Amino acid sequence: MTLIVGDGPLVAAGVYTTNQVVAAPVTLCRLRTPSSSTRAVIINSGNANACTGDAGMRDAEEMTAMVASKLGCSPTDVLVMSTGVIGRPMPMDKVRRGIDSAIAGLAPGEEAFVRASTAIMTTDAFRKSITASIEIQGSPYRVAAMAKGAGMIAPNMATMLAVVVTDAPLAQSDLVELLRHSADRSFNRVSVDGHTSTNDSLVLLSSGTGTPLAGSSLQQFRDFLGNTCIELAKQLVADGEGATHVMEIRVSGAASDDDANHIARIIGESPLVKTAITGSDPNWGRIVSAAGYAGRPIRPEMTSLKVLGVPLYKNGAPVPFDAATTSRLIKDSPTVVMELIVGDGSGTAIRWASDITVEYVRFNSEYTT
Amino acid sequence: MTLIVGDGPLVAAGVYTTNQVVAAPVTLCRLRTPSSSTRAVIINSGNANACTGDAGMRDAEEMTAMVASKLGCSPTDVLVMSTGVIGRPMPMDKVRRGIDSAIAGLAPGEEAFVRASTAIMTTDAFRKSITASIEIQGSPYRVAAMAKGAGMIAPNMATMLAVVVTDAPLAQSDLVELLRHSADRSFNRVSVDGHTSTNDSLVLLSSGTGTPLAGSSLQQFRDFLGNTCIELAKQLVADGEGATHVMEIRVSGAASDDDANHIARIIGESPLVKTAITGSDPNWGRIVSAAGYAGRPIRPEMTSLKVLGVPLYKNGAPVPFDAATTSRLIKDSPTVVMELIVGDGSGTAIRWASDITVEYVRFNSEYTT
Repeated sequence: MTLIVGDGPLVAAGVYTTNQVVAAPVTLCRLRTPSSSTRAVIINSGNANACTGDAGMRDAEEMTAMVASKLGCSPTDVLVMSTGVIGRPMPMDKVRRGIDSAIAGLAPGEEAFVRASTAIMTTDAFRKSITASIEIQGSPYRVAAMAKGAGMIAPNMATMLAVVVTDAPLAQSDLVELLRHSADRSFNRVSVDGHTSTNDSLVLLSSGTGTPLAGSSLQQFRDFLGNTCIELAKQLVADGEGATHVMEIRVSGAASDDDANHIARIIGESPLVKTAITGSDPNWGRIVSAAGYAGRPIRPEMTSLKVLGVPLYKNGAPVPFDAATTSRLIKDSPTVVMELIVGDGSGTAIRWASDITVEYVRFNSEYTT
Repeated sequence: MTLIVGDGPLVAAGVYTTNQVVAAPVTLCRLRTPSSSTRAVIINSGNANACTGDAGMRDAEEMTAMVASKLGCSPTDVLVMSTGVIGRPMPMDKVRRGIDSAIAGLAPGEEAFVRASTAIMTTDAFRKSITASIEIQGSPYRVAAMAKGAGMIAPNMATMLAVVVTDAPLAQSDLVELLRHSADRSFNRVSVDGHTSTNDSLVLLSSGTGTPLAGSSLQQFRDFLGNTCIELAKQLVADGEGATHVMEIRVSGAASDDDANHIARIIGESPLVKTAITGSDPNWGRIVSAAGYAGRPIRPEMTSLKVLGVPLYKNGAPVPFDAATTSRLIKDSPTVVMELIVGDGSGTAIRWASDITVEYVRFNSEYTT
């Protein structure tokens, strides 16, 4: 159980799963964001509260009401996130005890932040968090963010959850736009297994007071926030179930950024590309052919590919390369950068995806309901 | 090397890969079909002749010219298919010798058909072929079909190739329509790893003479051909690299057939659904949530699921079931039928997909260029 509480009202915005099968906490958060009076976020792991019907909605509401009564605020000012098994009733007795002890354990400072970001882990191999600060026109601003999971990577476990907090003063409408922009560049660009969960939730909270950032200061903070979210999102991919490499897929020359993004996504989700990287195999045929079936226009005769800087394919024809050296290079690189040019358009995109290993399949197939 | 030759001119139609990166033989066949004067199809395995540039086109043309000169027909009346490694020059010396011995070994009858359908195998674990006959208004008609592969299932190996021959008399325009219809119901409805190859080719050849089938006779033959292709396509899925189950995914209640087909496809390609079936896990949460992220409208509150006849989820809520019995049922069923209702629309679809095993990942990641 993780509880995040503001000293006063927080400006809040959320981005949620695009899955049409939606967990109760997501339904509730959608109604309660954006807001300028959010006080807290309560998060549980172990049960996703998804596909749980009306009882699930009542349980999610009760969780926020419990927190609200302790804090003396309205239940609508409390957000809730859940992650865990789908289709099981919430064990509310346990949840109530958990909320009590989370409130009792509330503390400020970095140590509590670390404890909180550890508490939201489920099958995560390591804690995913980041803190960063920036000075804009003489004023320092901080961002602290925590996340768990990476897609539906574990048995029946739903979800990526992330909370980003900042002390930068931001107007509610700017916060909404900033979060959308950051999510599109970061959390919406990663995939482990391409299975969008029922619970994905990302919330940005600002405790900043005073005049909201505007103009070039807002622009500067926007870039800073985006990059911070990218770093956190990459941690999710690195912790993809059984993953041994992060693939950084850079596509350029597409007709549009959207086309480039889609092509990069298809490459990152191809089991044949994933297994090639797992095996440190500079198998350009799989990467180029994945771009070819992505369903967006490419110019095969202008298509070129470098992996970790090594040219493998140029203008539609293979380039001779030292397979053993390139394979060793891939083996030794935790992040494998692929640069694919698909034509002479101006569309570009970067995405990150994990490779797939025997461990992923074993873990996800040996589990039984 | 496989060579299929008609005693006289054949009516021919083809359906080819939708990948934009296209192997030379596919480019050639696209130019040469449909046709009413096709004489032969020459097929090699081991080299895909894909991403091989101008030399690849010359090699593909030479293969057909060689066959044509032996048969005394025009090179444009010979089709060519290749499957194997991408991006390597065709070993033309070997190919020429292969064509010579294929021509020397030409023979009629079933035994030769079996030999031919064995010769096109690459990493296939078993030969995939079917022969069937039907009587329409007192006349018997035969269909014989062979296929290899199932998507890009093997290291750098491209492809599904299939040749369907019949003695039913068919007009060229009907043949084109029949093949499109059959492909849409069969080969376009199967997936192993979702990676569309650069070489996929399906050709239908008719040696039938006399008045072409028409009206209800044509309709009857169309259904027969479609079902024959479905049986062959299911063999491809059953031989998916490392596969232990065929998933038969039936979606109904969608807004359109196309929506139902897309939802079934996303379910069949989800690594989490695949690994659940591998592990004999009646994990309905993975199946329902895959339908939810497929990007086509569903009605979560009307969504219901049966696996092998066992109700697991009904109108948006879990149904109590005996997990151990259901798991054993899945384990013992080579084909696992999933029936998913996603609303009250009239759209329906059936698709087939393989599960994914540790062997698939091991095989595809242990290979090195």
